[in-house]
Amino acid sequence: MTDTGISESIKNQVLELGRNARKASRALMGWTADEKNRALNAMADALEHNTPQIQKANSADVTEARENGLTDAMVDRLVLNDDRMAAMIRGLRDIAELPDPVGRVLKSWEKENGLLLKKIAVPIGVIGMIYESRPNVTADAAALCLKASNAIILRGGSEALRSNQAIAEALQKGGRGAGLPEHAIQLVPVRDREAVHALITMDKYVDVIIPRGGEGLIRAVAENATVPVLKHYEGICHVYVDGTADPVKAWSIVENAKCQRPGVCNAAETLLVDSGLDADWLVKMADILEARGVELRGDDRARNIVDSMKPATEKDWRTEYLDLILSVRVVDGIEQAVEHINTYGSGHSDAIVTDDPEKQDYFGRMVDSAAVYINTSTRFTDGAEFGMGAEIGISTDRLHARGPVALEELTTYKYVVTGDGQIKE
Amino acid sequence: MTDTGISESIKNQVLELGRNARKASRALMGWTADEKNRALNAMADALEHNTPQIQKANSADVTEARENGLTDAMVDRLVLNDDRMAAMIRGLRDIAELPDPVGRVLKSWEKENGLLLKKIAVPIGVIGMIYESRPNVTADAAALCLKASNAIILRGGSEALRSNQAIAEALQKGGRGAGLPEHAIQLVPVRDREAVHALITMDKYVDVIIPRGGEGLIRAVAENATVPVLKHYEGICHVYVDGTADPVKAWSIVENAKCQRPGVCNAAETLLVDSGLDADWLVKMADILEARGVELRGDDRARNIVDSMKPATEKDWRTEYLDLILSVRVVDGIEQAVEHINTYGSGHSDAIVTDDPEKQDYFGRMVDSAAVYINTSTRFTDGAEFGMGAEIGISTDRLHARGPVALEELTTYKYVVTGDGQIKE
Repeated sequence: MTDTGISESIKNQVLELGRNARKASRALMGWTADEKNRALNAMADALEHNTPQIQKANSADVTEARENGLTDAMVDRLVLNDDRMAAMIRGLRDIAELPDPVGRVLKSWEKENGLLLKKIAVPIGVIGMIYESRPNVTADAAALCLKASNAIILRGGSEALRSNQAIAEALQKGGRGAGLPEHAIQLVPVRDREAVHALITMDKYVDVIIPRGGEGLIRAVAENATVPVLKHYEGICHVYVDGTADPVKAWSIVENAKCQRPGVCNAAETLLVDSGLDADWLVKMADILEARGVELRGDDRARNIVDSMKPATEKDWRTEYLDLILSVRVVDGIEQAVEHINTYGSGHSDAIVTDDPEKQDYFGRMVDSAAVYINTSTRFTDGAEFGMGAEIGISTDRLHARGPVALEELTTYKYVVTGDGQIKE
Repeated sequence: MTDTGISESIKNQVLELGRNARKASRALMGWTADEKNRALNAMADALEHNTPQIQKANSADVTEARENGLTDAMVDRLVLNDDRMAAMIRGLRDIAELPDPVGRVLKSWEKENGLLLKKIAVPIGVIGMIYESRPNVTADAAALCLKASNAIILRGGSEALRSNQAIAEALQKGGRGAGLPEHAIQLVPVRDREAVHALITMDKYVDVIIPRGGEGLIRAVAENATVPVLKHYEGICHVYVDGTADPVKAWSIVENAKCQRPGVCNAAETLLVDSGLDADWLVKMADILEARGVELRGDDRARNIVDSMKPATEKDWRTEYLDLILSVRVVDGIEQAVEHINTYGSGHSDAIVTDDPEKQDYFGRMVDSAAVYINTSTRFTDGAEFGMGAEIGISTDRLHARGPVALEELTTYKYVVTGDGQIKE
């Protein structure tokens, strides 16, 4: 992805998408909540009416994916069966029901000179969404961005291009009927990877890039983008069980954080156990986890208590398993636990189990992560669980948005200052 | 500034600054408001006590700058006379008086499952500040970052290195006495430009880069950084005088926006006049401005009314004069005015003068700028004028911070979720 590799024609094609998106985003600044919700419902209707065409396009993608030897898991992610179509359509109608994130007065105050200042939530502008495989992201992301009055340029996985095109066409058709600006929703129409480079360096027309997918994709985008990126690298999440923990709650929280859905980013990867805790607690914890099929990898002190554990290496502390594997370390108290989390963690979601209010405060303040949990499971980091409605992703960045990126996070703000002729002295 | 040009030793030196800054930033997460304010006052004391050494170092910089043929304006920016020293010291004490931006509960809510969610303002972490000339920025930026519990790595102009070093040493000495973590405030100790490249690509240890200076500097930083950048390109600010404007207020607002301090980013560069406004208004406006020494450059319709105007070219609409020059265009109503502003402006500060509430609303909603003014001057875009206290800069970006970047903008947030054993179903 270097400048020299970009064919001018692809670059110009993407620039044209950008120019048009900027124009559409300006028009969307004048859109009301009702207008947006009407468009969202019209888009859902259009997906419904165009289901046969969308599934036909999807079949072609799936066939080609199989021919190209994609893994079963990848092919599965690609498939748009009836349930997934229905969920996608329902998603759009749900987003229409959510409150409008634009126009909220975030703050309002008057100065001694009589100036009235308002800090108001406004759309970000143009959002570039880069994603892999799952074609439903096309509809989900377009709907969330539109609800926040943003224009979107979508760039899905090349293996899903036909599906994404069919979905985008249906969304555009539905939107058009509801008066949506023509280029509010656009899909990069070519498979070439050069198009991605053009998209992520088009600062003039794109305000933020949201990549969703494997670490390789995200790293490539982050390293080459000149447009700001809202990203999520990985979720190396911890549960620390303090000596003051309620043992029963601790068993249940660790089991939930590891086993309830091990393949997701907010599942726990490392258990930190206070050396002050009764050794029996860890023995029983290991029984529970091993009964659920979890492979345990411990440091020397943990293996002294549970000898069925494999040895953990330095690499384990840095690994997002996304699988039924848990690394276990015995630490000497909360400070060492926090030090471990801030050293090896990914700033995603980390939990403590303790009944001591001082330790709760300390952990809440000192753990440098997007979401910190006290006596509950890391698995709650999610826009819907937080009560934000659907999310477009989870940010492990620090600027603009941290944690779930939902509708409010798809807005920025401006100041509107009203006076009566005031001038600066 | 390419990878190949970086000497390994400079890169390692900067990496060491980064590692140490990260450690200091983690320690600062535990600091209270009182501790920070005590450190800020101790730093002010140290600047006071070290004034002779600082001014001696400054004299050496000034002498070298003169020998190197820097312009008088550049040399003037460099000089630390008694007044400027006093202002710098007072600045630190003022920052100590401001409310703590860290720990604010931005939002708090309970879910049906009993989880208590709090969205809490926390430090960003490590801030890299890159600036030119004025050595007072060393103290101002360090103090603002510390007040928000951030560690800072400072990289000033090479022509001010001795001054910056003397100031940083005094700040560190004062801070040390108040228990400040050793590497909370660090200055890049070398002049080599390679150090800048190392700083802006050190994602692991630096969370945001704030560049302050000429457009060349900012563009180079933005293009080469992999760390997120909070930047301010230029201020091409407009005043639009609608046909419904109070003529007297309009004269006064335009005069103020252009003339009160023409060299700053929130001064007006373009006047847009509604063709519906009485032609006499523009004649009188031109008299007022010309009496203040302003050169007017108009489009054909403006020159038909005021024939002393020079012709404006396309380039004028895109130019930040920072001088007593104003471009003038006659437009057909508010929509054309907004179109002009969104096309040629820099998203900084733009004003309308009108008594029509509908036009006020339209302008406030449709102008895509950080600050939009209704019946008042663009010159108010400033942290202090907005009531935020001192500012570290003004952002024309859209993400994270827009407009004045003051203490609250130097924080991010995290979620602290407290439960009683809840697990995800």
